[in-house]
Amino acid sequence: MTENSIKFGILGCAQIARKVSRAIHLSPNSTLYAIGSRSIEKANKFAADNGFPETVKIYGSYNEVLNDPDVDAVYMPLPTTLHVHWGVLAAEKKKHLLLEKPTALSVADLDLILEACRANGVQFMDGSMWLHHPRTAKMKDMLRDTQLFGQLNSIHSTSTFSETEEFFDDNIRVKPDLDSLGALGDVGWYCIGAILWATDYKLPKTVCTLPKLTCNQQGVILACGASFDWGEDGKAATFYCSFLSNVSMDLVLYGTNGSIHLEDFTIPYEESSASCDLSSGANFAELQVGWTVKPVKVQVASELPQEALMVQEFARLVENIKKNGKSPDGKWPEISRKTQLVLDAVGKSIELGCKPVDI
Amino acid sequence: MTENSIKFGILGCAQIARKVSRAIHLSPNSTLYAIGSRSIEKANKFAADNGFPETVKIYGSYNEVLNDPDVDAVYMPLPTTLHVHWGVLAAEKKKHLLLEKPTALSVADLDLILEACRANGVQFMDGSMWLHHPRTAKMKDMLRDTQLFGQLNSIHSTSTFSETEEFFDDNIRVKPDLDSLGALGDVGWYCIGAILWATDYKLPKTVCTLPKLTCNQQGVILACGASFDWGEDGKAATFYCSFLSNVSMDLVLYGTNGSIHLEDFTIPYEESSASCDLSSGANFAELQVGWTVKPVKVQVASELPQEALMVQEFARLVENIKKNGKSPDGKWPEISRKTQLVLDAVGKSIELGCKPVDI
Repeated sequence: MTENSIKFGILGCAQIARKVSRAIHLSPNSTLYAIGSRSIEKANKFAADNGFPETVKIYGSYNEVLNDPDVDAVYMPLPTTLHVHWGVLAAEKKKHLLLEKPTALSVADLDLILEACRANGVQFMDGSMWLHHPRTAKMKDMLRDTQLFGQLNSIHSTSTFSETEEFFDDNIRVKPDLDSLGALGDVGWYCIGAILWATDYKLPKTVCTLPKLTCNQQGVILACGASFDWGEDGKAATFYCSFLSNVSMDLVLYGTNGSIHLEDFTIPYEESSASCDLSSGANFAELQVGWTVKPVKVQVASELPQEALMVQEFARLVENIKKNGKSPDGKWPEISRKTQLVLDAVGKSIELGCKPVDI
Repeated sequence: MTENSIKFGILGCAQIARKVSRAIHLSPNSTLYAIGSRSIEKANKFAADNGFPETVKIYGSYNEVLNDPDVDAVYMPLPTTLHVHWGVLAAEKKKHLLLEKPTALSVADLDLILEACRANGVQFMDGSMWLHHPRTAKMKDMLRDTQLFGQLNSIHSTSTFSETEEFFDDNIRVKPDLDSLGALGDVGWYCIGAILWATDYKLPKTVCTLPKLTCNQQGVILACGASFDWGEDGKAATFYCSFLSNVSMDLVLYGTNGSIHLEDFTIPYEESSASCDLSSGANFAELQVGWTVKPVKVQVASELPQEALMVQEFARLVENIKKNGKSPDGKWPEISRKTQLVLDAVGKSIELGCKPVDI
């Protein structure tokens, strides 16, 4: 822990908190300062299981973390249903808020959190780690290169994993009172986020759920897809998210002059480096018996895992506010809000029986 | 030319006829016997440009090819509008018919051709070359492996290329009186064919065009997409085809235990060998900081280019009929008919303004 480190408190002992506590440890401007659970036993066990240093404070409630004056920021991987209550409270306690996705059950709920953050001058960011990988920035550079890529015409994205019976019985992500958005909220968030990222967060005009929606008996979404339409400018997008298919994380961008393919966009195969396939200016070979140019693998090294880069960026913004008197960065709340807005529209399209919904 | 070779006549001097004449040459059981064009000058030039041997008969009309008693089979790369007339006539002249895709403007038109082939005992096959690549058979083996791949949940396919201004002014594929189906017929044929292939030709219950359809001023489709639904059994598919995006030929199959990705499914990057990426049993690594298993590249060698394998298979069936008294193989007409049927439904969905169409 250095003098300048941003001190994080973690609310809850979710699986993902293990990954993010490591990320806080790896991030050079951040320190894991406290962890709180509804039971002190659970918090102690989590700290022991994950080898937390003894300096980390262990609390038996979320409130104690929020009331600790030394905590600068909280990472909140709670069930979505609890986000409004604890997110608003955190902001009111002047804690900067790194909130796990999906950010809320609706954009109306998210707005309560964002408004609390605004009113209290704290930074907001959601836990979309992939946005912080240097590969993502590299892809945006390529995407913007009109020679290399041209105009973006179409986007396809997937985020799927298949789970054990145990998951479907027990996991909060398939319980209507905890995460009623199911696969749409959990993994669809990434697909929607990737599509918006590719279009520089220009909202589609219309979204429409694709047929073959799968829900569990309590109505929680286990698999769904949707198509997006931007109207006049010609872009289109589709996504597919599921708890019922083997791991996939595809992002494909189709442009007039090129295309970009990757199959591990949310979690790169490896931590130190990630790649994507760039095809540019390809055409059919003479007689159409092959391609003139094969796609090339564009490799991008990453000094830190993407989740540590996320924490580092969040802590940098917090530091700017805390020590340099800067205002919170409006970019991250806007990204979250637009993602949630489109997610809401997909949810509404599902409710309407796969009818188009204007945004 | 060997004694047992099947003698091919080609009707028309389309670009694609160059590729297929080479394929006939490469195929061990086939001989290029004649070529016919509406003008003898054009046919002579085509023969000279492509280095045809002097034994190849050059005709100044399609009729002369069909009337040549030594011609066993014809390859017909004519504009789609002309398929019914010349396809039916070829069958009536007892010529086995290898017909370029799209096979017809509608399934009703195709049925006229298929009925003529049936009535005259000649073999029918459409020009979907990729179906004959050994990679395709290998993928089907993997797809059927319930351990490796599991149950097929979702399919995504694209077939796109971008063209010069000249193409959009002149090419028959964007002229309403020649190929009114445009990109849907030309490249969408492959996407639809791939989706049907993956589902063992089980027809979807419903198809629905995706928004962001692009047509030229004469109403010819330049880019479109669609989603397919099979109803109860849970499968879903999407495709995107376009004359306005750089070359792409994606086929992705998502299953409960695995996925298969390839980006060159219609025309492999190289002739001698092709690959696909197989991901099976992958999961998130400990802490979700990577994958437990990376996809593996499955490489499949091909002794002949896929179009030569197509010609070889077609000629084998013709030989069976001609020399062994067998009946025409019903598999290939059925594949074509189902593809055309779904293509018709997509076209109808477009006409209805992207409304779902039951099949």
